[in-house]
Order: sequence, then structure tokens, then C-alpha cells
Amino acid sequence: MFNEKMHRLGSNRSVIRELFEFGKQLAAKEGADKVYDFSLGNPSVPAPAVVKTSIQKQIDLPNSTALHGYSSAQGDPDVRKAIAAHIKSSFGAEADPDLIYLTVGAAAALCITLKALREEGDNFVCFAPFFPEYTVFTEATGSALRPVPMQKDCQMNLEEAAKVIDKNTKGVIINSPNNPSGAVYSEESIKALCALLSNKSKEYGHPIFLISDEPYREIVYDGIKVPYLMNYYDDVVVCYSYSKSLSLPGERIGYIAIDPKATMAQELYYAVCGAGRVLGYVCAPHLFQRILLDCVDAPADVEAYDKNRKLLYSSLTEIGYDCIKPQGAFYLMVRAPEPDANAFSDRAKNFGLLLVPGDTFGAPGFVRISYCVSYDMIVRSLPAFKALFATYAK
Amino acid sequence: MFNEKMHRLGSNRSVIRELFEFGKQLAAKEGADKVYDFSLGNPSVPAPAVVKTSIQKQIDLPNSTALHGYSSAQGDPDVRKAIAAHIKSSFGAEADPDLIYLTVGAAAALCITLKALREEGDNFVCFAPFFPEYTVFTEATGSALRPVPMQKDCQMNLEEAAKVIDKNTKGVIINSPNNPSGAVYSEESIKALCALLSNKSKEYGHPIFLISDEPYREIVYDGIKVPYLMNYYDDVVVCYSYSKSLSLPGERIGYIAIDPKATMAQELYYAVCGAGRVLGYVCAPHLFQRILLDCVDAPADVEAYDKNRKLLYSSLTEIGYDCIKPQGAFYLMVRAPEPDANAFSDRAKNFGLLLVPGDTFGAPGFVRISYCVSYDMIVRSLPAFKALFATYAK
Repeated sequence: MFNEKMHRLGSNRSVIRELFEFGKQLAAKEGADKVYDFSLGNPSVPAPAVVKTSIQKQIDLPNSTALHGYSSAQGDPDVRKAIAAHIKSSFGAEADPDLIYLTVGAAAALCITLKALREEGDNFVCFAPFFPEYTVFTEATGSALRPVPMQKDCQMNLEEAAKVIDKNTKGVIINSPNNPSGAVYSEESIKALCALLSNKSKEYGHPIFLISDEPYREIVYDGIKVPYLMNYYDDVVVCYSYSKSLSLPGERIGYIAIDPKATMAQELYYAVCGAGRVLGYVCAPHLFQRILLDCVDAPADVEAYDKNRKLLYSSLTEIGYDCIKPQGAFYLMVRAPEPDANAFSDRAKNFGLLLVPGDTFGAPGFVRISYCVSYDMIVRSLPAFKALFATYAK
Repeated sequence: MFNEKMHRLGSNRSVIRELFEFGKQLAAKEGADKVYDFSLGNPSVPAPAVVKTSIQKQIDLPNSTALHGYSSAQGDPDVRKAIAAHIKSSFGAEADPDLIYLTVGAAAALCITLKALREEGDNFVCFAPFFPEYTVFTEATGSALRPVPMQKDCQMNLEEAAKVIDKNTKGVIINSPNNPSGAVYSEESIKALCALLSNKSKEYGHPIFLISDEPYREIVYDGIKVPYLMNYYDDVVVCYSYSKSLSLPGERIGYIAIDPKATMAQELYYAVCGAGRVLGYVCAPHLFQRILLDCVDAPADVEAYDKNRKLLYSSLTEIGYDCIKPQGAFYLMVRAPEPDANAFSDRAKNFGLLLVPGDTFGAPGFVRISYCVSYDMIVRSLPAFKALFATYAK
């Protein structure tokens, strides 16, 4: 009667959403203070003040028809110029405003990019652990996602990547800082990946694109630097979102930036415009385009996340959990004290702890903890983590 | 190298966008006052005052993380409830908040609905004249769009529809008030269409869905009523947008409402959720979801459009043009004084008049005039229309 695949994807909620809904029910029954919800990646830090002043400025302008009217499909030219200038001043890379395409968030940016690139028979490669919707987005184009198995430290496993990439690989998706591990790929490993891709591109006689999903770019700790890929490789497509850096995930504003050095960059841009049209994206929300003129350079507020990170990492390690220390994003991966992370996640529920099992992230045996929550909730959750751990000592 | 179809769709702009870009160049060369741009459907009436006060209210709330955070994929429950209440109070139809899905505008609503419904071999039917992106959206699902040929008065040609609909027809798209004709389908013709669809559904043993693309619902003149489809048929899916009624086209906010009486409505809703996920729509822009709580009942300001309509229709008719009198929306269809509307549109450019040829709308021999422009521009354009018409008398 309906499209069976859409029905399946709509009725089987993602494991994250399932946990989130369970948490709401539990809170209704037991009280909100008995639930420690670490399931969702919804920023807990308010948007920087400049977001509000900029919205205020925009709505006080005399011409509301221009403000709320359509922009061109690619986004307003002055906004694209401001983004290119930000890329130049922050990373020294030469971005071209006419190769930037504003999107309805990073998910749209990825869907559009994959659809623009994909030809019959193509596959896309990513590194485990990875954001599970990559599978949905890649399969939506009619191609397959091939995850490179996880390396113990959650850096990229390049030895395995060399085996997974083949002549039909159109692109490699990387996500650093990473969801779910919080890993930031080192400059050394980025260089090695780019060398691998250059060699493979030569070998197969076609470019392999490096698709950089980087909504967490600014969420980094201990002064660590995230290498800007356009400075290391030519065939780069950046998929960015202001969801996390400006705490605007619900407003759906991001962009695609094609490296001006990319093979046939202008033609790829046309394909991006076509894919945006086919997927029904008329333009990115216009008010939130306009505020970027004031906000592109606003620094992300990472202090609260860092405080959470330190507390959680040190406390859980002290309790006895095996944790992967995050360098960025607001996720912490913890090894389940039993082989099956789903069983561990289920047991954790009994203590009010909502931890996402890592299987769909390509990280079986681990759970993901989103620490974009209140510091207070983390403090209150620690006895529950301790009690949960104790059940494994018996 | 890239997806060839996406490249083609991205490099060949729609005929509307082509004209719009030409107009910008002409204005730069000849002066903006020499260009009469009737190409785009970008509302010229400002958003009602309640939009600004509501945005103000929202950004003044203490909790900006909730305001700008993710909503559930379907949209906030209280917003969906407000929309259902509006449907009930305005049209007397029983909408169910849990069968409403907020979207990034009407284009997204249509793309999602078509993708949710479409099974292998399906086709979709629409009535000429029709919005050309229907072809793009339908083909994106892998199915075909079958337009029913235009009837002289731009009402639905039901005799032809009976021939076009076949056993593989999954849905019929209707758009009333209509873009590009401004026609509002009469209650009589809606009843006849519903009877036809009921019979065909019975004959073929599966429901044929009625997909109502209705962004212009409130833009009607002379007190005319737009029949609400849920009151006439069971298998209805409404695709609505606030783009025109609230003059917010750039903010991308609309919804899908599935008729609670529809066959397996809950299952269809799941398929809608799945299709939204696959197309990369995480949620509708949250700030603009929230303002709907204040704005769902705001009346559209149609006075300015009506003034434009009357001036244009009477003036062009007086000059000698053959016009189809619009009952709604802000478009006027005019018969080209020569068989080829493209040639007419080209000739019109010499007079600074940007008129969209109707071929891609399924209305060859006609041009579309968007009169969501300033009254003053219409007044100034009339001598150009007269001079253009005079060239055909020679």
C-alpha cells in the first residue's frame, strides 16, 4: 500500500530516539530527577548572545518581505561571501562563495552531497565508529555505505581503509570531532588518509572525494587543533552545520563548501544545486541565513561541555569503567562491562541511566554518553553509575 | 563523474529562475524602473504583525536552548495540536495532531508525501496547468507524473482524468487556488473528482490518494470558498505551507496532514516519518514552529493582491489581451497573441516585461503573470503591455 522501506524507517525509530522516548515515560512515572538522560545530542549551552541581538536586528529592519522572502536556492550571496571569508581567515583556505551552498542543516548537506556525487554502482566509505544515519542517507541514493572497522583508539584505521576502498568508491566520509567517540583525527592520520586517497584516485583513474561532516568542528578541548581538510587534499566537500557551534540545531542552518581545487568543482556545484532541488530544499531558512552575517565568527562556548567532560571521564574511570577520552564533540564512549552493549544499556535503564548502545554506530561493546546536559545531572547520576558497575562485580 | 541527472537539473535553471536572473541583468543595464518583473511568486505583502510580536515573544523567553533545540521529527506536539484545532474550527474537519507532520515548507511536504506513498510501478496524476516542480518531485521517487490536459477555463478536466488515471495511479495531486492559473476548483468539480476517485479505487482494489497542495488556500477573492477536501473524500493528504498566507516563503515552514479517515492512516504516517528521515529533514525550523502557536489563525492580507488583480485584469483585457480571470493565488494567465508563448515572452523582454511562458506548466500558448508585486509597478508597466500588444496589430 505504501513504500515499505519508508514505513520501516518511520516505524522503527532510531535507537537514540527509542531511548529518549523511554526516558520521557520513565520521568513521568518515577519523577524527572530519577532519570539521567544521556541519549540525545541536543546542545545544553545557550546560543551565544550575538544570535539574539542579530535576530532582533533583523526583525527590526523595515523590510520584512525581504527578510522572510525566498533567497536564491544557493543562499544569499552576501552570506556565502561571509562564510568564505570566515574559512579564509580561520583556516587559510581559499573558499569560493560561488561554490558554497546553504543548507537546511548538516543532514541536508550530506544527503545533497551524496546524491550529487552518486552514479550507478558507486559506494561510499566511512570510519567506525560513525553516525548511524550515514547508512540511511547513503542507501537513499541507491549506493552502499562501507564502514572501515573501528581502531581501538577510535582514530582512523588506515590499513583496513586501504582494503575497503575499491574502484567503485566515490567518496569517503569523515567526521572529526567524531560522533560518537569524541575523537579528533590527528594531522598525521589526515595526511596519511589523503596520501592513500591520492594514490587510490590515481590507481582507479577517478577522484575519490573526501566528504567532511564537521558540525562539531569548534567543540574541541585542551587547545587541540582540527586540521582543515582543504589544506591537505583537493577533492574536498565540507558539510557544516551551525547546530552545535551556535546551539541552533532546531533551526536547521548549515552549508556545503566545495573545494575550489576539486575536480570539475563548478560542475559538482551544479549537481549539488540539482540534488537540492530534487530533495525539495527550496532554500535554507532565510532569517537564520541573515544572522550568519553577524555570527560566522562567534566563538563556540565549550567551557560547560569541558567541565562535564572532565567530571564524567574522571569519575567513570575512577569507578572502574573503561572510557575513551574525548578530545572534541560532547560524546564519551564507554566500554560495556559485558560483551553485549545492548544488555548493558538495558540494565542501565534500571538505574535511570539512558546510554545508547554502540552497535548501530559500528562500535559494538560500547555505549555512547551524550554529555551536553546539565552539570548537576551528571553529579546526581554518579551514584547510579557506581551502583550499576557494582552489579557486574557480583 | 557526478550524477548526470542532478547536474542537468542544477545547470538548467527553471524557466522562472532564468527570467528572474535576466531581469536582474536588465535592471543593472537599463535601470530598475525599466524592468517589470512578473516572474516570481515571492509575496509582496509583509508578514502580519503577529509574526513579529510572536518572534519577539519567543526570543525573549528565558530558555533559548529549548527554543533553538531540536524538536521531535514530527514537530512539537503543542504546535501540531494548534494546527489540528485550526483545521477543525475553520473547516469542520477532524484532523489528528498525531497525523500531522511539520515540514520545511510545501515542497518538502510534497516530496515526503510522494516518497512515502510510492511503490514500484506507481504513477501520479495532476491537472494542467500545474506547478512544474511536480515533475521533478515525482520523478525523484522513481515514478512518473501524468498531467491531465488543460480545460479551457482552467477547471479540472474530469473527462480526460478518467482516461489518464489507471490501475497504477497511487495519487492525484490537486492545487487549488492554482498556480499558475489562479483558478479555484468549484465544489461541484471537487465532488465529481471524489466520485471518480472512489469508483476508480473500487475498480482497482486500492485507494487512490488525493494529495492537496494548498499553499494558496487563504489567497482568494470575491468571497469565494475553497472546499476542504477532507470533507469530501477519505484518502486525503494535505500539503500546506505558511509561505503565502503568512508571507514567510524563505522560512520554510509547512505541514502534512493525513486524513484520519484515510486507509491505514497510522501506517501512512510512519511512512511519512521514514521519508522525512531519508530525505534528510531532521525537523522543521523550530522558531517558526513555535510562532505558529500565535499565528495559525492569523488571516492572510489579500487586499493588496486583490487590488493588483483587478487593475491588471481590467487593464490587460481592455488593451485586448485574452486573460483567465483569477479567483485566487496571485497569478494571472494570459493567452499569447501568437501561438508560441516562448516567442511572446521573448518579445515581451524588449519592453522590459518578464512573463513566464506556460509550456512547462502544461499551458502552452499562455504566459503566467505573478502579480505579487507593487501596485505602482503594475501602473508603470501598463504602457509597456500596450506597446507590446500593438506590435501584433501590425
